[in-house]
Amino acid sequence: MEYIDMRSDTVTLPVPEMMSAILDAKLGDDVYGDDVTVNDLESKAAAKMGKEAALLVPTGTMGNLIAVMAHTTPGQEVILEENCHIYLYEVGGIARVAAVQAKTLRGVNGLPTINDIESSIRQENIHFPETGLICIENTHNMAGGIAIPPSKIKEIYDLSRAKGLPLHLDGARVFNAANYLNIDVADITCYVDSVMFCLSKGLSAPVGSILAGTKEFIGRARKYRKMLGGGMRQAGIIAAAGIVALDKMTDRLEEDHSNAMLLAIEMNKLQGVSVELDKIHTNIVNIDFYETGYDINQLVSKMKEKGLLVNPRNERAIRFVTHIGVKRKDILKAVEITGDIIA
Amino acid sequence: MEYIDMRSDTVTLPVPEMMSAILDAKLGDDVYGDDVTVNDLESKAAAKMGKEAALLVPTGTMGNLIAVMAHTTPGQEVILEENCHIYLYEVGGIARVAAVQAKTLRGVNGLPTINDIESSIRQENIHFPETGLICIENTHNMAGGIAIPPSKIKEIYDLSRAKGLPLHLDGARVFNAANYLNIDVADITCYVDSVMFCLSKGLSAPVGSILAGTKEFIGRARKYRKMLGGGMRQAGIIAAAGIVALDKMTDRLEEDHSNAMLLAIEMNKLQGVSVELDKIHTNIVNIDFYETGYDINQLVSKMKEKGLLVNPRNERAIRFVTHIGVKRKDILKAVEITGDIIA
Amino acid sequence: MEYIDMRSDTVTLPVPEMMSAILDAKLGDDVYGDDVTVNDLESKAAAKMGKEAALLVPTGTMGNLIAVMAHTTPGQEVILEENCHIYLYEVGGIARVAAVQAKTLRGVNGLPTINDIESSIRQENIHFPETGLICIENTHNMAGGIAIPPSKIKEIYDLSRAKGLPLHLDGARVFNAANYLNIDVADITCYVDSVMFCLSKGLSAPVGSILAGTKEFIGRARKYRKMLGGGMRQAGIIAAAGIVALDKMTDRLEEDHSNAMLLAIEMNKLQGVSVELDKIHTNIVNIDFYETGYDINQLVSKMKEKGLLVNPRNERAIRFVTHIGVKRKDILKAVEITGDIIA
Amino acid sequence: MEYIDMRSDTVTLPVPEMMSAILDAKLGDDVYGDDVTVNDLESKAAAKMGKEAALLVPTGTMGNLIAVMAHTTPGQEVILEENCHIYLYEVGGIARVAAVQAKTLRGVNGLPTINDIESSIRQENIHFPETGLICIENTHNMAGGIAIPPSKIKEIYDLSRAKGLPLHLDGARVFNAANYLNIDVADITCYVDSVMFCLSKGLSAPVGSILAGTKEFIGRARKYRKMLGGGMRQAGIIAAAGIVALDKMTDRLEEDHSNAMLLAIEMNKLQGVSVELDKIHTNIVNIDFYETGYDINQLVSKMKEKGLLVNPRNERAIRFVTHIGVKRKDILKAVEITGDIIA
Repeated sequence: MEYIDMRSDTVTLPVPEMMSAILDAKLGDDVYGDDVTVNDLESKAAAKMGKEAALLVPTGTMGNLIAVMAHTTPGQEVILEENCHIYLYEVGGIARVAAVQAKTLRGVNGLPTINDIESSIRQENIHFPETGLICIENTHNMAGGIAIPPSKIKEIYDLSRAKGLPLHLDGARVFNAANYLNIDVADITCYVDSVMFCLSKGLSAPVGSILAGTKEFIGRARKYRKMLGGGMRQAGIIAAAGIVALDKMTDRLEEDHSNAMLLAIEMNKLQGVSVELDKIHTNIVNIDFYETGYDINQLVSKMKEKGLLVNPRNERAIRFVTHIGVKRKDILKAVEITGDIIA
Repeated sequence: MEYIDMRSDTVTLPVPEMMSAILDAKLGDDVYGDDVTVNDLESKAAAKMGKEAALLVPTGTMGNLIAVMAHTTPGQEVILEENCHIYLYEVGGIARVAAVQAKTLRGVNGLPTINDIESSIRQENIHFPETGLICIENTHNMAGGIAIPPSKIKEIYDLSRAKGLPLHLDGARVFNAANYLNIDVADITCYVDSVMFCLSKGLSAPVGSILAGTKEFIGRARKYRKMLGGGMRQAGIIAAAGIVALDKMTDRLEEDHSNAMLLAIEMNKLQGVSVELDKIHTNIVNIDFYETGYDINQLVSKMKEKGLLVNPRNERAIRFVTHIGVKRKDILKAVEITGDIIA
Repeated sequence: MEYIDMRSDTVTLPVPEMMSAILDAKLGDDVYGDDVTVNDLESKAAAKMGKEAALLVPTGTMGNLIAVMAHTTPGQEVILEENCHIYLYEVGGIARVAAVQAKTLRGVNGLPTINDIESSIRQENIHFPETGLICIENTHNMAGGIAIPPSKIKEIYDLSRAKGLPLHLDGARVFNAANYLNIDVADITCYVDSVMFCLSKGLSAPVGSILAGTKEFIGRARKYRKMLGGGMRQAGIIAAAGIVALDKMTDRLEEDHSNAMLLAIEMNKLQGVSVELDKIHTNIVNIDFYETGYDINQLVSKMKEKGLLVNPRNERAIRFVTHIGVKRKDILKAVEITGDIIA
Repeated sequence: MEYIDMRSDTVTLPVPEMMSAILDAKLGDDVYGDDVTVNDLESKAAAKMGKEAALLVPTGTMGNLIAVMAHTTPGQEVILEENCHIYLYEVGGIARVAAVQAKTLRGVNGLPTINDIESSIRQENIHFPETGLICIENTHNMAGGIAIPPSKIKEIYDLSRAKGLPLHLDGARVFNAANYLNIDVADITCYVDSVMFCLSKGLSAPVGSILAGTKEFIGRARKYRKMLGGGMRQAGIIAAAGIVALDKMTDRLEEDHSNAMLLAIEMNKLQGVSVELDKIHTNIVNIDFYETGYDINQLVSKMKEKGLLVNPRNERAIRFVTHIGVKRKDILKAVEITGDIIA
């Protein structure tokens, strides 16, 4: 069966232009700094982020983990929103590998208040771990792809600088945020010390994420990448697609966003189905099926039987994600399938 | 100046009977199991807790840290109330040393709801750390010395057993809880897999805490104690006082509790000062000075000048702790000092 | 300048057949198990190794690190030869990330004696960490690419099983070993519990290594891969080349080995240059220049000026590595360049 | 049965003067810095060591672990002699807790050569962990209580300073070393950045060790002590005995040393028993029973039956330790017992 796959934008396949780029890529041993394709990608990515330097990593999870390691020392505390990806979905790596303590704060639309952040920064006291880092996420996955505007981030950045703390952005989908906000991505990343973003996901590269920051920070990050086993050799085959992702794919995210809004609006019309339309900023649509009376796992199974792949978000909602592999007609079909099931 | 010291019950001095016991103690090398005084204390403590075995540790912090290490494997997640002592006041040891991730839940009177605990236990998913342990605290320090009744703990214990998770009790002041609830301490500890309690604090021993649990658990704990550097040699000089603490000092906690209530009632009468009287269960009294308009740190300084030592709890309240070194007349004097300052 | 690059076999570029395979690969999201190319590679690799299951990882360093994590618990001791790659060249990851203690033993030709291994296994004692794992390396890089015969490995395996300890093989170049020994690679790997080997290096894939073992072991390894950030999405673009590496490239290692021997013999004829010819088993040639009186770093620089890239091994020797990018004529040219410099 | 206990000098009991000191000690809460007895001990100890500051810890193991933590960052490498106590007998704490990699060097009489130390310091290389610390041990336990002269330590100290590396001394028995060398202990400790020594062992205090170094270092150490659970409250009961140990017990170590030499000489006369007399510097006597044909564990058991407690050192030798609880007549009795058994 041909599925409409809305489980995640991680399922995106490389576009033909990426495959040609891979075929034509000049390769070398990146551990020796000899892979010019990787070098090109890292320069381009740094420039886009407005940072001094960038580093190609196999995944966003590694990029975030390295960022935490390079910003902190073990035993420090890291301030995070309680539903952020780093804390919930990265296998506890910041505890097991980085050995830092998570200080989780409730967020409103994915962002803790500036007051909560400020009061959670530890004072000097022999009983306390030191606060070492603040992390934020934009767009915020669990909050439904909400884009956080630069003004809010600047507020945190001002605080973090005043307190001498680094600020890291899990920007796995920061291009979605910039697209929604209709600004340059650097207008967001100028307010953080480091940013990780994914070349895969909406940008459709098969593999790879970028960590960007100061030259000194990326120097330390490069060593942690080696330690964790992310120092690949002829990584140009990955970087080649990444360059296409950066050059050609960021503008088309708008299509995913309008498809997401279409899905949200149409689904919201179904009996017992509800979507908070004002929260649909980008390509993630959390849809509440509680009033349909359906068990969520059963609903997901039925959708699969009819050719629609999605993941449950919690016991009452399903997360739908739009991406290059989902066209307007697929959206309408997804609504139709859903309508048929719950009718 | 002679101070009334209500900063904490950790300031208690050993009673004369403890000093005699120390002088008379039979000593040996406890790493070889040869210190009979330590062996006696551990047997007595295990019996009191209704556990198979017990272990003397230098501090409650080490007892809790060892418990987390012996119950979990690094990378697991530990469920804790967000204001518990282990998470807030133990220097991030569970992150740095035990390498576990803290999953903090809001508590009501120091205890998270059973629903919140249940829904925070991780499902099987490649993105998730495993849940490895649930920790509770009784009495709960930050909640103001509130005693949690066995029925509530049993509810969590039933859940933890159903899920195959161990349950650890930070019972630094569990004898205060038992005293308030007018039950045997074992009526509380029967619902946990392990418990740490302090021989110092209200029980007045100069040094030492106990970790209790199954024989197998204590076997593992003994090795972690050695690793952390808690395997003392002629520890009988500590244990001797600990035996007096266990045998003679648990009943007198009632005096501390009535002094605390007296303090609460009298303070509450002062203009602009407020105490939630129904939350005064044991020997901790959090007093809110917000409406006096005083800066808390300034207030604490003024109290010190007049002979009263206390610690701020947050920016609007001060924590007063009663113990054997604070008599009824000291309570009244403390109220008088406070009244004079804020008059 | 066109260089003869003998720094390492990590510099190998993918062969055209690999690039076609990449272009034609069926891709999917490997975190969901949907990438059939990855699945094919993992099945093929497991079969070749004679193991139940296999896992694609971005690098050999990650494969080894995951193996140590999946076999041990933090605080255990791991027995290693003192010049092995895991201990010397993997950034201390087994200490920082796996938190195990290295028990290093001197090797003869890369392998510790069975007696040394046996006596280094810790007894039960409260002062001791537990021994958790034995690691060996074949071929052994620092020992000069020496191939360790299965009989020697079997001896260690028998011991490890008797002691209930797992045995891991860092087999980054295990196909070179099998080729030299003229046996099937599974005749080596049948005597270990897990093996890591590289698809890059001599087999010329651009990126990727394999970890193989029991199904249960690989299940745990998969979770650690996610934690470290090695869970790539459309990893089929890497796996496609890996399949070609496994299917087509293992037999051609013989060419590298005869080129290495040619280099060794010819270099050995130069005045002041010496090579232990009986230690040239595979594609690594350590050449001693001590008697030429040259400073090694200066010698390496001069070689670079003349178009020959190599790495110093220590202060008296240089390591030359042969691979698909170095032909017979390059070997002779390398000898000529060297001869010219030291003449 | 009354045993002659030569298992270790850790079995020493406090002298009466210590017990009086404990009884008379002024106590306070040391976490608040209020225990004047602890403060006195720390000042005295710092002065004796010629260091700015000192810290009381429950055990030597904790003192060493804290030193490693406070000097390094996780992932660094620590250079150690391969049979040192920190590496062999401290439960792998430096791996599990400090997360550093042990770089072990063979020693001659307990000390690695200066050349081996120098060449084991890591160069800058992306594959390498950083070297973070050098540790030495004096007297060296496993080498048989050998005292290392200051000149040798100075050589290492000069190197460590040139390389910007801290040097830590596990001086559990550094007063034995100073006594043998007939110098002030500060003539040894002036060549290290930090030193741990034990108040228990030969100095006979029941519990406690000291870590000394710069004020800044001890500041960090104090926080790690809290994290590990070594921040005891009325620790003056331990410190009081420690002050007596420092003031009164260091000179009497000479008696232990002459008893050790007596034991060595007399044992050496027995058939099949051999002792390297020139290695008997202090209070440890390793005696080789290989030529008696006895199984070591059996021999130890027979000695126990006859009232003599000792520990096997390895499969051919037994370690005897002299201390305040072993008098000249006990030495002669121990020789007699041994003679009777192997006759």
